Amino acid sequence: MDKFFNPKSIVIVGASSKRESIGGIILRNLLDFGYPGRIYPVNLKYKKIGQLDCYQSISDIKDEIDLAVLAIPAKVVPDVVEQAAVLKKPIKNFVIISAGFKEANAVGGQLEDEIIRLAHKYDLKVVGPNCLGVLNSKYKLNASFSKNNFSAGHIGLIMQSGALTTALFDLAESENLGFSKVVSIGNKAVLDETDFLKYLEKDKDTKIIGMYLEDIKRGREFIEALHKASHSKSVVVIKAGNSQKAKKAVESHTGAMAGEAEVAREAIEASGGVYVEDFLDFIENLKMLSSFKKPGSDKVVILTNAGGAGVLTTDLIEKNNSLSLKDFNLCEKRKLLKVIPEAGSINNPLDILGDAITDRYTRVLRCLRDMSNIGAVICMATAQAQTDIIGISKAIAQANKYCSFPVIPVIIGAHANKQAQNVLKPYGLNNFIFPVQAVAALSALYELDRRKSRLASAHFKFSNTPEVIKKMADNAYQEFRGAFYFRESMKMAEYYQIKVSKTYYFGDHSFRPKFPLAIKVDIPRLVHKDSHGGVILDIINDSQLEKAQKELKEKFPEEEIIVQEQTFRGIELILGIKRDINFGPVIMLGLGGTMTEIYREKILWLLPCAKKQVEEKLNGSILAKILQEKKIDIGVVIKQVLKVVKIAEENEWMRELDMNPMIFYSDRDPVTVDIKVFLAQ
Amino acid sequence: MDKFFNPKSIVIVGASSKRESIGGIILRNLLDFGYPGRIYPVNLKYKKIGQLDCYQSISDIKDEIDLAVLAIPAKVVPDVVEQAAVLKKPIKNFVIISAGFKEANAVGGQLEDEIIRLAHKYDLKVVGPNCLGVLNSKYKLNASFSKNNFSAGHIGLIMQSGALTTALFDLAESENLGFSKVVSIGNKAVLDETDFLKYLEKDKDTKIIGMYLEDIKRGREFIEALHKASHSKSVVVIKAGNSQKAKKAVESHTGAMAGEAEVAREAIEASGGVYVEDFLDFIENLKMLSSFKKPGSDKVVILTNAGGAGVLTTDLIEKNNSLSLKDFNLCEKRKLLKVIPEAGSINNPLDILGDAITDRYTRVLRCLRDMSNIGAVICMATAQAQTDIIGISKAIAQANKYCSFPVIPVIIGAHANKQAQNVLKPYGLNNFIFPVQAVAALSALYELDRRKSRLASAHFKFSNTPEVIKKMADNAYQEFRGAFYFRESMKMAEYYQIKVSKTYYFGDHSFRPKFPLAIKVDIPRLVHKDSHGGVILDIINDSQLEKAQKELKEKFPEEEIIVQEQTFRGIELILGIKRDINFGPVIMLGLGGTMTEIYREKILWLLPCAKKQVEEKLNGSILAKILQEKKIDIGVVIKQVLKVVKIAEENEWMRELDMNPMIFYSDRDPVTVDIKVFLAQ
Repeated sequence: MDKFFNPKSIVIVGASSKRESIGGIILRNLLDFGYPGRIYPVNLKYKKIGQLDCYQSISDIKDEIDLAVLAIPAKVVPDVVEQAAVLKKPIKNFVIISAGFKEANAVGGQLEDEIIRLAHKYDLKVVGPNCLGVLNSKYKLNASFSKNNFSAGHIGLIMQSGALTTALFDLAESENLGFSKVVSIGNKAVLDETDFLKYLEKDKDTKIIGMYLEDIKRGREFIEALHKASHSKSVVVIKAGNSQKAKKAVESHTGAMAGEAEVAREAIEASGGVYVEDFLDFIENLKMLSSFKKPGSDKVVILTNAGGAGVLTTDLIEKNNSLSLKDFNLCEKRKLLKVIPEAGSINNPLDILGDAITDRYTRVLRCLRDMSNIGAVICMATAQAQTDIIGISKAIAQANKYCSFPVIPVIIGAHANKQAQNVLKPYGLNNFIFPVQAVAALSALYELDRRKSRLASAHFKFSNTPEVIKKMADNAYQEFRGAFYFRESMKMAEYYQIKVSKTYYFGDHSFRPKFPLAIKVDIPRLVHKDSHGGVILDIINDSQLEKAQKELKEKFPEEEIIVQEQTFRGIELILGIKRDINFGPVIMLGLGGTMTEIYREKILWLLPCAKKQVEEKLNGSILAKILQEKKIDIGVVIKQVLKVVKIAEENEWMRELDMNPMIFYSDRDPVTVDIKVFLAQ
Repeated sequence: MDKFFNPKSIVIVGASSKRESIGGIILRNLLDFGYPGRIYPVNLKYKKIGQLDCYQSISDIKDEIDLAVLAIPAKVVPDVVEQAAVLKKPIKNFVIISAGFKEANAVGGQLEDEIIRLAHKYDLKVVGPNCLGVLNSKYKLNASFSKNNFSAGHIGLIMQSGALTTALFDLAESENLGFSKVVSIGNKAVLDETDFLKYLEKDKDTKIIGMYLEDIKRGREFIEALHKASHSKSVVVIKAGNSQKAKKAVESHTGAMAGEAEVAREAIEASGGVYVEDFLDFIENLKMLSSFKKPGSDKVVILTNAGGAGVLTTDLIEKNNSLSLKDFNLCEKRKLLKVIPEAGSINNPLDILGDAITDRYTRVLRCLRDMSNIGAVICMATAQAQTDIIGISKAIAQANKYCSFPVIPVIIGAHANKQAQNVLKPYGLNNFIFPVQAVAALSALYELDRRKSRLASAHFKFSNTPEVIKKMADNAYQEFRGAFYFRESMKMAEYYQIKVSKTYYFGDHSFRPKFPLAIKVDIPRLVHKDSHGGVILDIINDSQLEKAQKELKEKFPEEEIIVQEQTFRGIELILGIKRDINFGPVIMLGLGGTMTEIYREKILWLLPCAKKQVEEKLNGSILAKILQEKKIDIGVVIKQVLKVVKIAEENEWMRELDMNPMIFYSDRDPVTVDIKVFLAQ
């Protein structure tokens, strides 16, 4: 992989002397950026391009080539790749810039498949096709057709959109963002995000990793790589293409199919990454992560020379779920009184008034340095009559050295921002123009740190399916059923000690049900039995039961009918498993009943999942609040979730488990009314 | 009021030749900006400041003065005001820049009260104290101490923070924002936001009004003024100081007490304004309102040269509650096929590929021009190898002329944005750097337009209280009770035809309650009866009833005890009235039961409120979805809300009405279990 970022020699197929052609831009970028290796332009039309000899064909090159960059029409790409792969000194690494593959049309799709075939045949590493290229600031490598300069720094980028990469470069300069290594992965026909995540994890020049992804290809491997990377670096992932319409857009873009947003979010966060959906958030998070210390607590101090600015920020902190304002104790207030004028405020937010000069900022920051339990200081300034933005920015830069917590500048204004950024840049710091951005990114940083401290193992392997269940599954497969009969599901529930509503079949030996009853038809794949008239409720005597049985028999003559005792009222939850095509089994606990569709409150867990993880995610959730309101022991719910975790671990064949509703009580054991099991195809 | 913005003569008390003093900055701003009227500096220390004669005292000026600007220590302000007010040609209009009043300490508070007294005594108009000043770009008046230039335009500003005003000026230049008239209202001792809103409503140079408010003083008058202004202008209000801690900050800032955020939001939106809580949103909304046409429908087309950018924007539109993506029909797609390359996309988002030059943008925009049912086009560009940002910006500017819908540029990048803004500025247009900002502001613009089209009357007067209720209220006041007995509340409910759970008193003539029963103690002001052991539920026979009665009698020997038949299960809502100190009665309908505290779903209505308003806000709300799920006729709920509207209109004395829970059914009339009535003090 290192040959992509530190190649000793590069061939550019499609190199050109034309300034506006892609091949021309790549060659110029390589030269302008100061690439120290050898460059071999290939183009039939030229004998020389500038100072460089130009080759007619790739076969004319006799030297060893580390990397081939292809900027030629899609239809000739496979031929050139094969030509390069069978050279006497074969080329193993390719960056295919060319578009016109899977993202374009079916013909392009075939060309891409051909590239994949060649990669397997000759053991080739391929970036793209349909990508911007690769960059390495330390090695002065810019093998891309980006028009924009990019600044050196410690952020590594893995981007599934070339255009957004150039846009990011354009924004980076004024945002004090600098990059180590950048790869635009394009259609990721061969190498994908996980390959480069593993590479950047080990890269010493990369401290932060930013990824733009429209889909995640090898979910479980991605999780493991992210998990590993999170131990030593901070990873921000912008996951786009989440909505239905967006999925369409993805298909016509890089031909990728997007997975489900919530699962991807859970996968990324549980692996210690930051999940964002929006480009602005992506940038603000990169700024925060690359510039500031981690906050040691959730307590924020606001320091401001403008009351209004303090009020706005206070509103934001109060609305934020992670952060809160520090309350100063009497002793601290006394100290603050010595450095803040009487007309100001020694309550948080600290208002040091519009005439505050640099010295007043410094004295207050020094005073805060010695206080305990400060997570972060948001240090605000607006350019008023006497305000020296440059001086204040320096004071903030200094404070970030002598304070154990981050001191985050929020200097509101365009010119003011520019002044501040110039001062902050050499310190590796960053200004935020608006408090909303600083608070959001600070909150994300704090949450990330908490998640990282709880990271467990990421490796997961399925266990064997218990024999009794395996038999039922085999049987269902043989009968081409996609799902279990209720009888089978009950048996599985019994095996895992999950209580199901007392259920009978007509003609059962023990048929002595207690009224009120419900009767239902048992058709494995019929999800919404009730809307098909397959359920009759509130049966209170034998004659009603007989009548209802007759009714269902007439409607569904082929099917078996079950009789269930109706359950006590309690709180209805949904508990189940969904097999995600990327990330494997996902355990889901959600609000059930008619509220489900409205509030969609749910918690997800991916495997592996221990008791600790179940507790951590459930505690503090909205579901936990609802349970508490209804006086339901959260320990009982955790126990049920752990049973489902076990089902997920032991039943690789399962596509879906749906227990809905599972009813929880304050004074008796939980019971599931319905249980459905679906099999993977 | 016009004397503040078009004064023929200004006296500056505290004028100075010192560049860094406030008085010095104001004088220089007046001169530099090209103020065409006469300037009279007053300062004991100088005979001349620059070219201008300087007066020792305000009494030395014999000419007629339109406006006095005071930049002197707080403690001498009242004397100078009075001196000016008793001149032979008395000065009537003051801008008090000086700080050190209510916002500082108690002594300052007394000085401010003195100013208010003088204003009443001499009929003076006063802006401030503790403010930045006033500006009028057309008249070239800059009577402020803002260090930043401000560009001319059509936005009028009423700002309760001077520092944020200067910050806004600093941001405005690069954001293509221009201002007509600006007033910093400071502590608003005399003139407040409503006075200036009324003034700007009539101002021909002002098309958009932006307000930063930490509190709203005369709520009902503000509503009426905003309502009136909304007919001809667009008003954006950033309301800060909403959280508890923020309220503290407000108190120490301009000494204002903030009202409740949700009521303020309802008041602003129902009056046709845009409510925002965040400074960035404020700016983005000003940009959108001052630059673009209104979208005629909610259907958005995304046009992009970068697939990733289209995907991000699609995600945002799909998440947005107001906007949606336009679906192109077959005929439209055929037309698009002629102007979009085969490898691009003719599905929304329209991807015209990375090599799109200006001409391709123009042809697609012309093609869209002729299509029906497009609300807006979001026209995106990232600076790729062949992209001509300047050309594309011009194409977008042109399209905004020939299209009936807005074409909103989203050109991502820092340099790219600068290029675009330079092109767009003369057209009065604006670029958005990030799709998230464009989508949010477009959505707000669309919603605003819908609200404006529904604006009814804003004027409200209480009707007389019905005699039977007035008697009970008088009686309660005489007994120094703050609340009604349950018996009285029931009587009121009966008068307004609201059904209360069947209730009895022991010893009643008609005492024949049906089990199960609940018994409760009737203490008017005890809100949480149950947590005080004042409620016993689920009584199913006479002996239990006797026992429960005895138990309550022992606990509350002085109080009356009521017996209620327990109600059927249905959906529990809360319906009531809250008297807001600023905006008058607010009708509230919310989710009841134990879910209330968790979800806090509620709808507010201010008076006046007709059936149409009740319907409009209820339809499409989350509460409506819940009602629908439970098969409850929304018409029944509307009828109950209208009864409460009537109660609010006729009972000026009422501080609070609380019907909680009121139970709604799919098959029977709604009934309230509890009803509490609180009296204003």
